Amino acid sequence: MSSLSVFRDVPQAQKLEGSLLKIYRQDEYSAKLFLAYRVCMSDDGQPWVSLVVHKTRQQIAQDPSLNYEYLPLLGMKSFIQASLELLFGKHSPAIAEKRVGGVQTVGESGAFQLGAQFLKMWRKNLKVVCIISCQKEHYGLIFQDMGFTVYEYSIWNPKDLCSDPCLFFEVIEHIPDGSILVIGNIIDCRFTQEQSVKLMSTIKNKEIFPFFDIPCQGLSTGDLEEDTRLLQHFVSLGFEFFCSQSLSKNFGIYDEGVGILAVAALSNQHLLCVLSQMMNYVQALWQNPPSTGARVITTILCNRALFGEWKHNLKSVVENIMLIKEKVKEKLRLLGTPGSWNHITQQSGAHGYLGLNYQQVEFLVKKKHIYIPKNSRINFSCINAKNIDYITQSIHEAVMSTEG
Amino acid sequence: MSSLSVFRDVPQAQKLEGSLLKIYRQDEYSAKLFLAYRVCMSDDGQPWVSLVVHKTRQQIAQDPSLNYEYLPLLGMKSFIQASLELLFGKHSPAIAEKRVGGVQTVGESGAFQLGAQFLKMWRKNLKVVCIISCQKEHYGLIFQDMGFTVYEYSIWNPKDLCSDPCLFFEVIEHIPDGSILVIGNIIDCRFTQEQSVKLMSTIKNKEIFPFFDIPCQGLSTGDLEEDTRLLQHFVSLGFEFFCSQSLSKNFGIYDEGVGILAVAALSNQHLLCVLSQMMNYVQALWQNPPSTGARVITTILCNRALFGEWKHNLKSVVENIMLIKEKVKEKLRLLGTPGSWNHITQQSGAHGYLGLNYQQVEFLVKKKHIYIPKNSRINFSCINAKNIDYITQSIHEAVMSTEG
Repeated sequence: MSSLSVFRDVPQAQKLEGSLLKIYRQDEYSAKLFLAYRVCMSDDGQPWVSLVVHKTRQQIAQDPSLNYEYLPLLGMKSFIQASLELLFGKHSPAIAEKRVGGVQTVGESGAFQLGAQFLKMWRKNLKVVCIISCQKEHYGLIFQDMGFTVYEYSIWNPKDLCSDPCLFFEVIEHIPDGSILVIGNIIDCRFTQEQSVKLMSTIKNKEIFPFFDIPCQGLSTGDLEEDTRLLQHFVSLGFEFFCSQSLSKNFGIYDEGVGILAVAALSNQHLLCVLSQMMNYVQALWQNPPSTGARVITTILCNRALFGEWKHNLKSVVENIMLIKEKVKEKLRLLGTPGSWNHITQQSGAHGYLGLNYQQVEFLVKKKHIYIPKNSRINFSCINAKNIDYITQSIHEAVMSTEG
Repeated sequence: MSSLSVFRDVPQAQKLEGSLLKIYRQDEYSAKLFLAYRVCMSDDGQPWVSLVVHKTRQQIAQDPSLNYEYLPLLGMKSFIQASLELLFGKHSPAIAEKRVGGVQTVGESGAFQLGAQFLKMWRKNLKVVCIISCQKEHYGLIFQDMGFTVYEYSIWNPKDLCSDPCLFFEVIEHIPDGSILVIGNIIDCRFTQEQSVKLMSTIKNKEIFPFFDIPCQGLSTGDLEEDTRLLQHFVSLGFEFFCSQSLSKNFGIYDEGVGILAVAALSNQHLLCVLSQMMNYVQALWQNPPSTGARVITTILCNRALFGEWKHNLKSVVENIMLIKEKVKEKLRLLGTPGSWNHITQQSGAHGYLGLNYQQVEFLVKKKHIYIPKNSRINFSCINAKNIDYITQSIHEAVMSTEG
C-alpha cells in the first residue's frame, strides 16, 4: 500500500461543547463541583429516573406478546398518538381534526435534523433561522450546516434579572419576514394578554414559521399543561408550525433518546403531504427508529395508574428543585449577601440564572472549583444537602469580592 | 388565520419502496404468499429472533447496576469494541494497531448517512458512487440526495445463474478513478486467487475508496468469519475503507436497529482525526445513540456462553435455510421442471435468485398470488412445510407456461 492516507487532509475536529466539563474532570481538587449537567439530578448526585420507568422496563422485557419487528418509518403509531396527546391535550380539537401529526425521532437532535431538512427543501424562501432561548442551543449548528443563516438570542435580562418579553419582541420585530423562529424553553417569559395578541399578529403578518422546542415537558413547572401554554395558544389559533418534543429528560431515559417531531398544519390533507415527504428523509436518516424508549413511554402514557404515578414523580422533582432554590435564597439572605435573590425562585425548572457577572463566575470556577457556565445559568438539582453550604458561602464570597 | 397553508406547495411523496408488499396486502386471495420479506423468517412465518436475545433482554431490564445516562456521542465503547472484534476477528492486528475504529449508528441507514456526509465533506474529489450488490440497495438514494452521481450494478449473471466475478471486474474497470465503491453482500461472488490479486491492484491503482456493507454477518454461510472474508482481505493488506455493519438482522432485534460505521485507516492518528470529525455529524444527526440494542448485543458478545449459544443459533438458521433450498430443488426435480436448479443451493443466505425470467415472475404473481420481485430474488426462509408444495408446483407451472 502507498503510505499516503486517503484521510491525510482530515484534521482533528475541535470539540464543540463540553469544555467546561472537561476542565472540571481534569481538576484534581477533591471538593470540586459541576453545576452545569443538562439533566435533572437526584439527591444522590445521579441523573434522575422516574421510578415508574424501572418497573415498566422490566414488564416490557418479560412480555411474551411483543415482537421485535421493524417499526414503521414514521415510528410507533401508538407512541406518536400518546406523545401528541401529551403535547396538545387529550381532547385537543387539532388532534380530532387530524391536522396535527408526528414522526418518531431519535436522540436529542433527530427532530431538528428532520425538520431542518424538510424546511430546507420545501420552504426555499426561508433562509434565516432565529433561535430564542435561555441558553446556547445545540441545534443552531444543525441549521447552520444546512446553509441557513442563524441568529441566536437570549431573552434573559441581566439587569432586571428576568426572562424579558420585551427582548422577545425586539427579536421578532427585527428579523426578516418569512424567517424560521425556533422558540426554546422560555416558560419564564410571561406575556401579558396584550403582548400575547401582539405576538400572534406579528408572527402572522411577518409570515414567521415557528419551530418550538419542548425539551422536558412537566419538568419546568411540574404541570404538564402549564409547560406547553404558549404552544397551546398557537395551535388554538390555527397556526402551522413544527415542534420538537423530547421525552428523554422527563422520563429519565437519557440512554434511549426518543421524541417526536410534531407537525401542525391547516388541514389533514396538508399534514399527510408533509408526513409523506418526511418519510423519505427518515428513510435516509435512520430508516426504522428504535423501539425501547417509545415502548416504555407509551406503556406509561396509556395506563391510567402508571400515568398518574409518573405525573406525581414529575411534581415531586419540581417541588424538590423549588425547595433547593428556596434554601439557596434563604442561606444567601442569612449570609447577608448583597442583592435581591428573588430571581432564583422566580425561575422555573432545574436550570436557572444565578445572576452573577463574569468576574463572579470566574471567582467560583478559579477559586472555589465550582464549575458554572459564563452566563451563570446553573442546574439547581446539582445542589444538595451535602454541598449547599459550600456553594452558598462561595457565592457570597464571589459577590463580596467584587463589591464596592 | 389566512387560509393559505405554509405547506401548500408540498405534494404527497411517492412511496419509494414496498409497492410489492402493498399489492400483496391488497390481494384478497386467501392462499396468497409474500416471498420478499427482508428479514429471516422462522418456521411459523414470524421474523426470526435469536433465543439468547430474549433472556438477555430480561436480564438487562432487571440489572440494578445499570444507569440510564446518555451514551457518548460516538456510542457505547464496549459495544463498538465488541462489534469491531466480530467484524475483524478478536486477534486482528488492525485492532491491536488501533487503526480501525467505529461509531455506533442508528437504524439500517445511519452508517451510510454518516459515512456519506463525511465523504462529501472531506473527499470532495470523490463524486461518483458505484454500488455493487445482488439487489437494489436503499442507500443509493442517500448518496444521490447528497449530490453524488450513483451507479448501481448487479453481479448476478442471469444466463449462467451465478454471482459473476467477471461482472464485478467490468464495473471496477470502467468506473472513474477515485470513485467510492460500495460493496454489498456479495458473498457468493467467489474470486480465484488470481482475480483477488487483480481486484486489489485495480482498487489501489484507481484510488477507489471501498465502502463495505455487512448487513447480516453470520446469516450468509452460518460462519461469522467466512461471511467477512473479503473485508478481512482488504484490512490485512492495509487498505483504508468504511464498513457499515448492521447487527439487527443477525440478532433478530429488528426493532432496535443498531450497528456501527467501522473505519479502517492507515494509522491511529488518521483514525482519530476521522472519528473526531464524525462526532460533529453525529451531534447533528441524533446526538446520543439509543442503548438497548447495543446493550443486548454487547452482553451476548462479551459472554462466552451466550456468544456460543448465539453462534449456534445462527448456524441452525442457515442450516435450516439450506434444507429448505434442497427441498425446493428436489421437488422441482421430481416434478420434472425443465432446467438445472443447482443455482438455488449454490447461493448462500436466506435470499437467492430463483433464476426465473420476467414472464415467469409475472405468472407467479398474477396467476398464483405468489409475490416475488421482478428479478426473482426471493427470501427462502419464507418457504415452509405448509407452503412448499404450492410454491414448487407454481414454479413448475410458470416454467412450463413459457417453455417453447
